[in-house]
Amino acid sequence: MIISYSKIIEGANFSPLAQTEVSYQAQQLICLDDSGYIARIIEPSDSDYAAIKQIAQANDTLTTLRPNQYILPGFIDLHVHAPQWPNAGLALDRPLNEWLDTYTFPLEAKYQDLDFAKTVYNDLVQELLANGTTTVLYFGTIHNTANLELAKACIQHGQRGFIGKVAMDNPDQTPDYYQDASAQVAVDQTEQFIQQLNELNQTTDLKQTPVITPRFVPSCTPDSLKGLGDLARKYDLPVQSHCSESDWESGYALEHYHMRDAEVLDHYGLLTDKSVMAHGTKLTDHDYQLFEKQGVAVAHCPISNVYFGNAVLPVKRVLTHHVKTGLGTDISGGYSPSLYQNMRQAVMSSRMLQDGVDNQLPADKRGVADSALSVKTAFYLATRGGAESLHLQTGKIAEGYLADMQVVSLQNDFQTETSDNIFEKLMYQTSKADIDQVYVQGERVK
Amino acid sequence: MIISYSKIIEGANFSPLAQTEVSYQAQQLICLDDSGYIARIIEPSDSDYAAIKQIAQANDTLTTLRPNQYILPGFIDLHVHAPQWPNAGLALDRPLNEWLDTYTFPLEAKYQDLDFAKTVYNDLVQELLANGTTTVLYFGTIHNTANLELAKACIQHGQRGFIGKVAMDNPDQTPDYYQDASAQVAVDQTEQFIQQLNELNQTTDLKQTPVITPRFVPSCTPDSLKGLGDLARKYDLPVQSHCSESDWESGYALEHYHMRDAEVLDHYGLLTDKSVMAHGTKLTDHDYQLFEKQGVAVAHCPISNVYFGNAVLPVKRVLTHHVKTGLGTDISGGYSPSLYQNMRQAVMSSRMLQDGVDNQLPADKRGVADSALSVKTAFYLATRGGAESLHLQTGKIAEGYLADMQVVSLQNDFQTETSDNIFEKLMYQTSKADIDQVYVQGERVK
Ligand SMILES: [Zn+2]
Ligand SMILES: [Zn+2]
Repeated sequence: MIISYSKIIEGANFSPLAQTEVSYQAQQLICLDDSGYIARIIEPSDSDYAAIKQIAQANDTLTTLRPNQYILPGFIDLHVHAPQWPNAGLALDRPLNEWLDTYTFPLEAKYQDLDFAKTVYNDLVQELLANGTTTVLYFGTIHNTANLELAKACIQHGQRGFIGKVAMDNPDQTPDYYQDASAQVAVDQTEQFIQQLNELNQTTDLKQTPVITPRFVPSCTPDSLKGLGDLARKYDLPVQSHCSESDWESGYALEHYHMRDAEVLDHYGLLTDKSVMAHGTKLTDHDYQLFEKQGVAVAHCPISNVYFGNAVLPVKRVLTHHVKTGLGTDISGGYSPSLYQNMRQAVMSSRMLQDGVDNQLPADKRGVADSALSVKTAFYLATRGGAESLHLQTGKIAEGYLADMQVVSLQNDFQTETSDNIFEKLMYQTSKADIDQVYVQGERVK
Repeated sequence: MIISYSKIIEGANFSPLAQTEVSYQAQQLICLDDSGYIARIIEPSDSDYAAIKQIAQANDTLTTLRPNQYILPGFIDLHVHAPQWPNAGLALDRPLNEWLDTYTFPLEAKYQDLDFAKTVYNDLVQELLANGTTTVLYFGTIHNTANLELAKACIQHGQRGFIGKVAMDNPDQTPDYYQDASAQVAVDQTEQFIQQLNELNQTTDLKQTPVITPRFVPSCTPDSLKGLGDLARKYDLPVQSHCSESDWESGYALEHYHMRDAEVLDHYGLLTDKSVMAHGTKLTDHDYQLFEKQGVAVAHCPISNVYFGNAVLPVKRVLTHHVKTGLGTDISGGYSPSLYQNMRQAVMSSRMLQDGVDNQLPADKRGVADSALSVKTAFYLATRGGAESLHLQTGKIAEGYLADMQVVSLQNDFQTETSDNIFEKLMYQTSKADIDQVYVQGERVK
C-alpha cells in the first residue's frame, strides 16, 4: 500500500548525529504527516521512492529543492529577552548595572503599553523565524497582558514558544517603576500566566509553554524564589533564569546567601531537569556536578558573554560533565537575532579560550588547552542540544521527529566536492537572506 | 551663480571624525563632481539648498534617501587573498601549515586556469562591493594573467583595487607545483605586472594600483626580498606582506635570520610609509616603534586572528604607538567578506582581551586592562584608518574627498531617538541585504 503524506520535501540534508558528528544525505524524500512530524524518510534506493514522489507531485504536495539548497533542522534559541529586541545592538559598552538601569529596565517597563508590545513582539517573532529559529525560550516582562501578546505572536507566525512572566520583587535590586509589588504578587502573577497560557493553547495546535522565570537571584526575594519553586513542582513546568553570568552576579549570592547562586536556586527547588540556566560563565566544577545530578541545562550565549560574561564558558568542559547545553542569542545582551552568528561566536570564543588572548604571555601560558569547539559541535548545540534541554523531539532530521526545519541556499558554491566542505560553508556563510524556507511542526512559516 | 553637479544625494550620514569620534548629519545634500569627488556638502540652512535641489530634480540627478536610510563612507579592506575566495569558511580548524599545504596552495595553483580566475574574481569583486567595500588591497597569485583578470574585474564592477602578484620563491617553504622558479623570476614577474597594470590603467578612470607583495618572510629567499625592496623604491609603490602573524611565523625569522620578521622586511627596504602589514598579533613594542618610524600600517584581521593569530592584536596599544591601522577580512583565513562582521569582531576580541577568557583565574589576573575598543573606533579603522594606510583621500563624507559611499537601511528601527543609537544599530545589525546603494568614485556600482 502506498501512503500519501501531507507534505514531502525532496533534497539534501544535514542533521546532528552526536556532539561531534553530523550526517549528510544527498537526496531523500522527507515525508510529513498531518500532525507535523516526519513520518518517513525515503531513500532513492527504496523501492517506492518514485511512486511516492509521483503521488506527491500529482497532489501538489511535493517541494523539490534546487541543487544549492540544503535542509537543516530548525534552530532552538534557549535565551531571548523578547522585550529587549528594540535595544539590540545598543549600549553594549556599558557596565551591567548601567545597562540594566539606564537601558533595559526603562524599556521593559514600556510593555504595559499593549500596542507597543504587539508591535515589537510581532516584529521579533518574524525576525527569529526568518533567521531559521523554530523554537524559542523567551523571557517576557512582568506584564501578563504583554506576555500573552508574545504567545499570540508565536501562534500567529508559527513559532514554538516557551514563555515566562518575569518575576522580580526584590526592591533593593529592581527599580520602583518596574518590579513585582511583593513576593506574593510575583508568584500569583506567574500562576495566573500559566492559566492564561493554558487557555490560549486551547485555540491552537502549536502549544506555547509557560515557564517559571525568576529573573536571577539578585532580583528576587527568598519568598518569591520559594513560591516559584513550589509552582514549578505543582505544575511540572520548565524553569529559566540566569546563573553565574558574571563576576558581579556570582558575587551577589555569596554575599547575601553565603552560597553559590546555583545552590540558592537549588535550595528553592528551581534546579530541575526542566531548568535552563543562561550563561554560566562563572560556574564551577561543583556547580556542573549539581547541574548534572539535577538534569539542569545551560544556555550558552557566546555573543552576550563577550559583553557581560567576563570570561568564556568552557563548553567542552561543561559537556564533559554531561550537562545538557544549547545556544542562546540573549537578545539584547547579545546584539544578533541569528543563531548562525552565535554558532560562529561559540567556535571563535572557544578558540580564543584555547589559544589565549594576551600576546605578552608565552604560548604555553596563554590559554586553556583542549577548549576549541568544532562547528559540528556548535551545530549540535543549536539543534539537539537545545531540544534535549527542552525535552523536545526535534532538532534532527529523522523519522518520528517534529518537522521543524529550514531550507538554506549556499551562495559561495565553489569547492563543494565534499559534504564537510558544504557543511562548513553553510555554517560560516549563511545569513538571513539565504534562508529560503522555514517549517515549524510541518507548517511552512517563511 | 548656481552650479549643477553630476549627482546629488540627499539624506543623513555618519562619518568618522577621529579615532573615537563619529559625526552625524541628519540632512545634507552631498554634491558630486564629474571626477568622482564630493565637491560640496550643503546644509538645509544654506541659502541655495532649495535651488540646488530643484535643479538636481529637474536634471534627474537627485537621489533622496528614505527616512531609515543612512550614508556611510565605503569601507576599505586592507587584506584579501582574492584566489582564496572559494575556500571561505573551509578548514578553519586545521593548523596553519596543513591549511596552507592541503587547502590554500592547491587552490591558488588553479589560477593558471584563466576561466577559473575570471569566474572567481568576478564573483568576489561583486560580493565585496555588495558588502559596502569600495577599496581593497588584494593578494593575487603568482600568475600575472590571472592577476590582470582581477584588475579587470575591479574595473568592470567599479572597485578601487590595490593588487599584488604574490612573490614566493623559497623552495623549502613553498610546494614545487606553486612557487616562483627563482628569485629572479619572482622579481621579474613582479615588474612585469607593474607594467601590465599601468597599461591596463590607460583604459579606465578607476586606476588599479600594483603592489609589491612578498607573501611573507618564510616563503621568500633573501634575494627575492632584496629585489622586491629595490622595485618598491624604483617605482615608489605600496608594499604588502604578513608580519608577526603567529607564534610559528614569528619564530621562523628568529631562527633563520636571527632577527624579528619586521626587521628582516625593513632590512630589505620593504617597510616604507606605503607598506601595509597584515595581522601583527605577535609584534612587540620595539616593532611598533619601527612601524611608526617608517610609517608602516597594520591590517588588523580580527576574524582571521581567532583561527591563526594565536592571540589578540592589542589595537589600542598599536594606536597609542601612532601606527596607522585599518581592517582586513583576510579571506580565507577569515571566513567573512564583510567588514561589518570584522568591525564587530574587532570590538569583541578587544573586549575579550580586556576581560580575559579563563574563568579559573581571578578577575584581576584574567585580562589586559584598557584594551576594549568602541564601535566608533572600529568604524574609524574600516574607513579613515584604511584610507590613511593607502594614502587615499577617502573614508570620510567631506568636501574634497572621493565619493566612495554606501547607503544602508536600518531594519530594527526602534529606539532611534539619538544618533548614537542609530549608529550603534547600523554597526551591529547591517548585513549585505541592508546595503542598498554603493558608490565608488562617484559611480553607482550597487
Ligand atoms: Zn539574559
Ligand atoms: Zn593573509
